[in-house]
Amino acid sequence: MPESERLLDSIRELLDGGRDERLSDVLADTHPADLSRALRELPLPEQVRVFRLLAPAEAGAVLSELDDQTLLELVRALDEVEVSKILDQMPSDHVVEVVEELPPEQAEKFLDLMEEEKSEEVQELLEYEEGTAGRLMSPNVVAVGEQATVAQAIAHVRKAATRDGAFYVYVVDDHDHLVGLVPLHRLLTADPSTPIGAIRTSDVESVSVHTDQEEVARLVQHHNLLEVPVVDVNRRLLGTIGVEDVIDVIAEEATEDIQRLGGVAGDETVFDPASAVFRNRFLWRLVNLGTAVLAASVIGAFEASIQALATLAVFMPIVASMGGIGTTQTATVVIRGIALGDLTPGVMARVVRKELWLGITTGLANGLVLAGIAYAWKGQLLLAAILGVALVLNMTLAAIVGTLVPVALKALRIDPAIASSVIITAFTDVFGFFSFLGLASLLMSFLL
Amino acid sequence: MPESERLLDSIRELLDGGRDERLSDVLADTHPADLSRALRELPLPEQVRVFRLLAPAEAGAVLSELDDQTLLELVRALDEVEVSKILDQMPSDHVVEVVEELPPEQAEKFLDLMEEEKSEEVQELLEYEEGTAGRLMSPNVVAVGEQATVAQAIAHVRKAATRDGAFYVYVVDDHDHLVGLVPLHRLLTADPSTPIGAIRTSDVESVSVHTDQEEVARLVQHHNLLEVPVVDVNRRLLGTIGVEDVIDVIAEEATEDIQRLGGVAGDETVFDPASAVFRNRFLWRLVNLGTAVLAASVIGAFEASIQALATLAVFMPIVASMGGIGTTQTATVVIRGIALGDLTPGVMARVVRKELWLGITTGLANGLVLAGIAYAWKGQLLLAAILGVALVLNMTLAAIVGTLVPVALKALRIDPAIASSVIITAFTDVFGFFSFLGLASLLMSFLL
Repeated sequence: MPESERLLDSIRELLDGGRDERLSDVLADTHPADLSRALRELPLPEQVRVFRLLAPAEAGAVLSELDDQTLLELVRALDEVEVSKILDQMPSDHVVEVVEELPPEQAEKFLDLMEEEKSEEVQELLEYEEGTAGRLMSPNVVAVGEQATVAQAIAHVRKAATRDGAFYVYVVDDHDHLVGLVPLHRLLTADPSTPIGAIRTSDVESVSVHTDQEEVARLVQHHNLLEVPVVDVNRRLLGTIGVEDVIDVIAEEATEDIQRLGGVAGDETVFDPASAVFRNRFLWRLVNLGTAVLAASVIGAFEASIQALATLAVFMPIVASMGGIGTTQTATVVIRGIALGDLTPGVMARVVRKELWLGITTGLANGLVLAGIAYAWKGQLLLAAILGVALVLNMTLAAIVGTLVPVALKALRIDPAIASSVIITAFTDVFGFFSFLGLASLLMSFLL
Repeated sequence: MPESERLLDSIRELLDGGRDERLSDVLADTHPADLSRALRELPLPEQVRVFRLLAPAEAGAVLSELDDQTLLELVRALDEVEVSKILDQMPSDHVVEVVEELPPEQAEKFLDLMEEEKSEEVQELLEYEEGTAGRLMSPNVVAVGEQATVAQAIAHVRKAATRDGAFYVYVVDDHDHLVGLVPLHRLLTADPSTPIGAIRTSDVESVSVHTDQEEVARLVQHHNLLEVPVVDVNRRLLGTIGVEDVIDVIAEEATEDIQRLGGVAGDETVFDPASAVFRNRFLWRLVNLGTAVLAASVIGAFEASIQALATLAVFMPIVASMGGIGTTQTATVVIRGIALGDLTPGVMARVVRKELWLGITTGLANGLVLAGIAYAWKGQLLLAAILGVALVLNMTLAAIVGTLVPVALKALRIDPAIASSVIITAFTDVFGFFSFLGLASLLMSFLL
């Protein structure tokens, strides 16, 4: 039995037995992330009971780790004063993570109930746009002036009572401009009287409050950073973003890409109730219905040919379907390449050539197989040949559409991942039916 | 112009002007990750020229950051002794990252040419299976005994000349068993004569050398760790995995999931030459051809009905296509939920109910729209009604297939992401054609 289920079982057992004291010991020994994952498996009244057994600091940590849906329901079930007292104990960037998920009126109420200083700090962070470095940063940062000595910096670290994750001391000049940093282990091994200016790095990578969180993630990932300082336009140090927040961004962005490609909202989760996702799912299905009707109208134009030779109807979906997988394969690699920042203009030409070559060669190979199957099945050589030719044409188009549509979307600053299979395969559906039925009709008009 | 293009431009300019000295200054000032991304945009002979201008330490860092394809070509173009000398300068876990990508004979040759001690360390790491914590870890770890004082621990940190990323001192007992850790900032603020045992954490999360890298990533992500110690079966400390390696794992696994869903190999990149991906792409297209032929054979069974009423051929792909988007949407959310560890048995029942409800309701809504369109277009009420019913049936099936296939694959320990659209939509293609044409034929047999 995995550890998470063991935890859940013992929570349930202690709840049922009414052994609150023992339960509260178990909870204190459990990581907040594991607790938040266990909570969501319980019915709401038991969630509330468990939550109330937590120490305030732990309760806060659990809140900031909860998935949106569970958070919404739990907060609604708790007393407002109770929640605001927990928020008061949390680092302001974690409060932001909680408050931004709540309905505006409720968020406002909490901000009113909170201590003024903390509430103002939170509101300042909330003013930065969602998805930017400013919204993500923690405003608590350990910074010292260049003239400070190592001993003074150490005293500063001690006083700042920093979280475990603070491993750099930032160095600022007289105007609070960020000029460098000192990793803690250098402080540890330097002579106490050394001025910080002498051991600081000569350079430090930073981001602006307005930098997109995806770009922050890329910087952290490529340069192996543990923390990124965030500065304003004048390079004044405003806060830091820790790698743990960046990891969440990377996972979130991956989820968004995967789900958009699959025709689902980027932030949908398995926890969302059906009513919350109905609209979005339905809309995508409606878009798909539109493209399917469009494809059907192409078939409709050739109804007379199908009437004359019903076998055409048997084979036509194969050509469309093969175009679909072709576009999907190509677009998937291209969209991932764009997301990873790999698809630079220099690489682009290579990719188009490669995909075209693949479209034509796999089209020829699959076309031969399909023509063989069709001939063996129906014994009509011409039909088999037309099928093969239409397949090659459609898979060549698939290579072009699969490459160019995502690139064009990116150029228009639209997320290429919404070029989901729904949209791009519309091209190959339409063209697949058109090329096969068109060629067949043309031939029939010569023969008949 | 983005910074990466500016870098590339100045490298090209200095190369063309033969200003090697200036170029080598520019290179020394550039982050190895940025350099490795610039290198791959250059033709191979220029890659070699640039690479030879790098200091050995930087050359090593660039090698370990290169994408597989560029690495293979560059290493082949360089002198073997030259490369092995660079490998000697690199941390062994980075050497592993390079060597594991090379063809076995070439890898062996490098391991022979390298210094014996380093080569042995690398070979030990290579013995751990790919995708496990052992293969990922760095064997250089700062550990002290419980009896050591803070002052002794600091001296140890100083001597270890650790990388910038080492921010913990691990504590082991007399048998080298991992018992706790001390974050550097606690060393910094503790009295030098304090025994380490008094300030170490009472507990420390660790993974085994055989732990799957995905599980390591989940632990780091949920518990916000910066580093995970890796231990053997006896809890002896063997190495550590830094968060920077974990980030790469998370990005890799996301790429794998996205690409497998799109019917492409998990490790394909935009840099791969067409010849390298032809086989995999072609095989998936062949699988798709197989499912398409299967669907076509269902249509073939109703050829007489289509002969009698060609309009059926116009509408039948719509039912199949709508089932396809339904399965894809459902499977996408379910597969992502599995990957994130969200789809526990407790959540499962909720998800099945939700997807069924969504399949039926969106099916009904879309079915009405489609029936309306069909009636307006062809004026045949019965045909329109059959179309609507077939759509509801197929979207209900889509909900079931989209949920159960990924879950079943997971239970069989197969990556659910290979339940790509190619495979799961085969169900709805076949059933879509069958339900619509079957209902229509049944009705026609009554009417005619």
